[in-house]
Amino acid sequence: MIQNPIPWPNGARCACVISFDMDADSLIHIARPADAHDRLYPISMGRYGPNVAIPRILETYRRLDVQQSFFLPGWCIETYPDAVEAILKGGHEIGHHGYLHEDPIEGPDQRYWFERALTAYRKYCGGTPAGYRAPVYNINQEVVDLLVEHGFRYESSMMADDIPYQVETAKGSFWEMPVHWGTDDWPPFAHYAEIGYMMPVKAPSVGLGAFWEEFDATYEAGGFFMLIVHPFLTGRLARWRQVEMWLEKTLATKDVWFARLDQIADHLDGLVARGAYQPRVEKLPYYSGPQGI
Amino acid sequence: MIQNPIPWPNGARCACVISFDMDADSLIHIARPADAHDRLYPISMGRYGPNVAIPRILETYRRLDVQQSFFLPGWCIETYPDAVEAILKGGHEIGHHGYLHEDPIEGPDQRYWFERALTAYRKYCGGTPAGYRAPVYNINQEVVDLLVEHGFRYESSMMADDIPYQVETAKGSFWEMPVHWGTDDWPPFAHYAEIGYMMPVKAPSVGLGAFWEEFDATYEAGGFFMLIVHPFLTGRLARWRQVEMWLEKTLATKDVWFARLDQIADHLDGLVARGAYQPRVEKLPYYSGPQGI
Amino acid sequence: MIQNPIPWPNGARCACVISFDMDADSLIHIARPADAHDRLYPISMGRYGPNVAIPRILETYRRLDVQQSFFLPGWCIETYPDAVEAILKGGHEIGHHGYLHEDPIEGPDQRYWFERALTAYRKYCGGTPAGYRAPVYNINQEVVDLLVEHGFRYESSMMADDIPYQVETAKGSFWEMPVHWGTDDWPPFAHYAEIGYMMPVKAPSVGLGAFWEEFDATYEAGGFFMLIVHPFLTGRLARWRQVEMWLEKTLATKDVWFARLDQIADHLDGLVARGAYQPRVEKLPYYSGPQGI
Amino acid sequence: MIQNPIPWPNGARCACVISFDMDADSLIHIARPADAHDRLYPISMGRYGPNVAIPRILETYRRLDVQQSFFLPGWCIETYPDAVEAILKGGHEIGHHGYLHEDPIEGPDQRYWFERALTAYRKYCGGTPAGYRAPVYNINQEVVDLLVEHGFRYESSMMADDIPYQVETAKGSFWEMPVHWGTDDWPPFAHYAEIGYMMPVKAPSVGLGAFWEEFDATYEAGGFFMLIVHPFLTGRLARWRQVEMWLEKTLATKDVWFARLDQIADHLDGLVARGAYQPRVEKLPYYSGPQGI
Repeated sequence: MIQNPIPWPNGARCACVISFDMDADSLIHIARPADAHDRLYPISMGRYGPNVAIPRILETYRRLDVQQSFFLPGWCIETYPDAVEAILKGGHEIGHHGYLHEDPIEGPDQRYWFERALTAYRKYCGGTPAGYRAPVYNINQEVVDLLVEHGFRYESSMMADDIPYQVETAKGSFWEMPVHWGTDDWPPFAHYAEIGYMMPVKAPSVGLGAFWEEFDATYEAGGFFMLIVHPFLTGRLARWRQVEMWLEKTLATKDVWFARLDQIADHLDGLVARGAYQPRVEKLPYYSGPQGI
Repeated sequence: MIQNPIPWPNGARCACVISFDMDADSLIHIARPADAHDRLYPISMGRYGPNVAIPRILETYRRLDVQQSFFLPGWCIETYPDAVEAILKGGHEIGHHGYLHEDPIEGPDQRYWFERALTAYRKYCGGTPAGYRAPVYNINQEVVDLLVEHGFRYESSMMADDIPYQVETAKGSFWEMPVHWGTDDWPPFAHYAEIGYMMPVKAPSVGLGAFWEEFDATYEAGGFFMLIVHPFLTGRLARWRQVEMWLEKTLATKDVWFARLDQIADHLDGLVARGAYQPRVEKLPYYSGPQGI
Repeated sequence: MIQNPIPWPNGARCACVISFDMDADSLIHIARPADAHDRLYPISMGRYGPNVAIPRILETYRRLDVQQSFFLPGWCIETYPDAVEAILKGGHEIGHHGYLHEDPIEGPDQRYWFERALTAYRKYCGGTPAGYRAPVYNINQEVVDLLVEHGFRYESSMMADDIPYQVETAKGSFWEMPVHWGTDDWPPFAHYAEIGYMMPVKAPSVGLGAFWEEFDATYEAGGFFMLIVHPFLTGRLARWRQVEMWLEKTLATKDVWFARLDQIADHLDGLVARGAYQPRVEKLPYYSGPQGI
Repeated sequence: MIQNPIPWPNGARCACVISFDMDADSLIHIARPADAHDRLYPISMGRYGPNVAIPRILETYRRLDVQQSFFLPGWCIETYPDAVEAILKGGHEIGHHGYLHEDPIEGPDQRYWFERALTAYRKYCGGTPAGYRAPVYNINQEVVDLLVEHGFRYESSMMADDIPYQVETAKGSFWEMPVHWGTDDWPPFAHYAEIGYMMPVKAPSVGLGAFWEEFDATYEAGGFFMLIVHPFLTGRLARWRQVEMWLEKTLATKDVWFARLDQIADHLDGLVARGAYQPRVEKLPYYSGPQGI
């Protein structure tokens, strides 16, 4: 089912990343800038992420010895330094996720906010992030150019393939770690009128069960399985219990490589360097101007 | 899965509250003030609550000897005094839920409507309510201050944790009994174009089955399980039959403390007073001004 | 679970009505009056009702010897006379459903359209309909008064109870045959952007399975089970096959009274006349003016 | 359940078409003409279709020796010539699907875009397409007339029956291959805010399971089963794996005629020519002007 499967380390049949976007209450501040600071329900819903879900998730990862990738808006890095510290202490990776979860397509001053997020990263995490995921997946060419300019190794907001591929621009290239709505927790769990996301919340076993079906097909095909999930949604008690049980079962019975996205980029670079793999390439920009009629 | 579990009375493994918001037809009057009095379908849908569902629910509680918490807008207290009397007679608690289910964030004159609801409460229920739940969960700082000023013991509209925690302000504090969209019946059952809630109605066993999954995880973790449901939705025949069967089974086979929220506040106060528990504290206000960009 | 259950004929445990609203393409003409006549997809979707689904439904009813209630807008009566004739020939009942499925709350000239629908009824069906269902359930006081004025025996758009009840006004009264979103096929099956109904279409067994759960609880409680469904949705091949199989099974194994709504009104009148039943009464108008704040 | 069943070739019990609309990124260019070329997430989601899903789908069809129908906007034919070539090489059929997935109801200059799509077809596929499907199903009388003028043999955007029927106009006629929302993959899988399609993504087995229920009823009734699906949705790994398994099972155990729509048109023409079948006829235009009130 996959045309050019990637050989995974130690013959693992599939790579697996549970990537968390820890947006906390940035979502409400960007959606309702005038009065969000006084909207206590969405703020509290967001705070559940860094304060309750992140410790729970990290404890599971620690116990199972798994390292994964987290994406945090710069404002969240500044506002929730304890969560940042705990994530890094667990050996996990933190990626760039905008400054206040601002939509790159809609926002002016992309460079300013992009670099302000880098400043927050540098101060709280040290160095530069290896990867980027656009808020609401809305990457555009300006952000692509910023990623190349700042030496990002990978990006994770696009959907042109099932498995990692290369994005090539005139000025440089990076790995794309592709996302998909079938493994994202907004559709099954997001019920958030203020940001226009009124999904009919699924039962934990139903919402997560859909993800495991995706995994089963990916495992069979020897592919790349990534969840794009959020602490305040998937880190809730009943849902995380299901993820935890799935992790325990999968680690015990399947030959899966759980890894951070930067480790996957390392592996891919190594394969390419020694001529062991030829990735698919998407050349950007796709179009020089409007195609509309 | 819970960092600081609460010791429940008599070693019960989990506390359980089925909290009903009896909004009746207040929802349509606040949504369509000009002509709601002539919209007979939503009025009749709302009246099902006090007139048909409440007697049914109370009969189940009486038979099973369970006391629970109900939240009523002041206007509903005035308009449906028989339901109020029956609820109180069953040993249940009635909490503050606005005057006409007005959204505190959108409405001016919060003090006026907040206190007018208190007047209705005083007249029909006697005294002052112990607890508050904001219509559409939209509590803000002004309401927090009113709660402190009027000596409320608990609030139930925020989501910063799985278990009760303390909200602390400069002028006083109260217990937060946290809510969650995974145990609220708007997402599975609300189909109400006039208030913008067009959910694809789930089967009774599917909608309620999601709640019981939440319970199972909460029970395993020794937590706090609260339904936030509505008589005109969950009190319908086929749905309530499922709740009733679940109640019978749970009471017979599990070690659960079914209680009113004010009783849970009592228990928590007792634990803190004798140094047996240290709650998590959220300090309000969260922000002194806009965080938006 | 039901406070004042109705004794059904011959000791049947439950009354059952599959009521069809045959709206055909009236829905698109009223929603997009300017260009609907040129919107061939929604017109054809609507025409499926009278031309394909109605013959299929009637054949099932004929074979199983069941008579049921259909509601047709006057324009549909005029436009699809063959369907009208076939429905009446099967011993079924046709009720009033507006003229072009116009929303009574939004439309001016209710008397004009109400009576124009009566004219169509008189011409194609003969006499006056016994019952009425408001398009989109949106009955108001003006329509209530028209029903009383024209001697309607029942109405079916409100939700104040699980079982039939009496609506009483200063000028007269009628039976209310209550509806419910849990037994309506818009939520599970309507996917119709032009009328703002974008439901995630359920599988036949899932959508109809929810209805059968409602039936099971109603049967257990000795109540009134009514489907509010549409030929172009529930009359589709795979869905109707499931209804047909449920009908066969239910007729063979349960003690159910399948009846037309006018027959149920007859039965209720008889019960009341001989003092065998005291119905619940809702007095209209509910309010003399706006209750909003 | 079907009034005038079509006799299928070699006594097959049912005809079956998996029709793919390969819209690729035309959807975003038409929805957001000003800046779509810089919206990399929806472009990449669209590109998954021709670049990843189409090769996967074609490989399955090749292995199972099945030929099917694909509908492509003219712009997609020009932009993804490799996909076009591979589709044709597999013995499949390509139909007309607008130029840039423009809605015929909303767009001016239908003749211009209709014929520009024909030009693209002629250049890349050779000759003229046999069939047409309107973008978003929105066919109108102007398009009907263009189909007749250009000698199209069939159309596939309307819903007036379960099985193919004839559309007759004053100037000529064609076969209608009817569609249905119960076998379309937008409702179960489309989550695409930019085009206003926010469905709660179903699990692969749930979304496709609904389709197979439709098939089972169609097979039992001896009808016409058509999926209207999209490479970027149903061609995803986990979903296509389920389709593939269903295909394998169905081919092995059922007596089904898998065919292209033009082959079905051939078969129907043959039946009619030798007097073996009398199709239902829909005469267009349906109305000479507005029916609205």
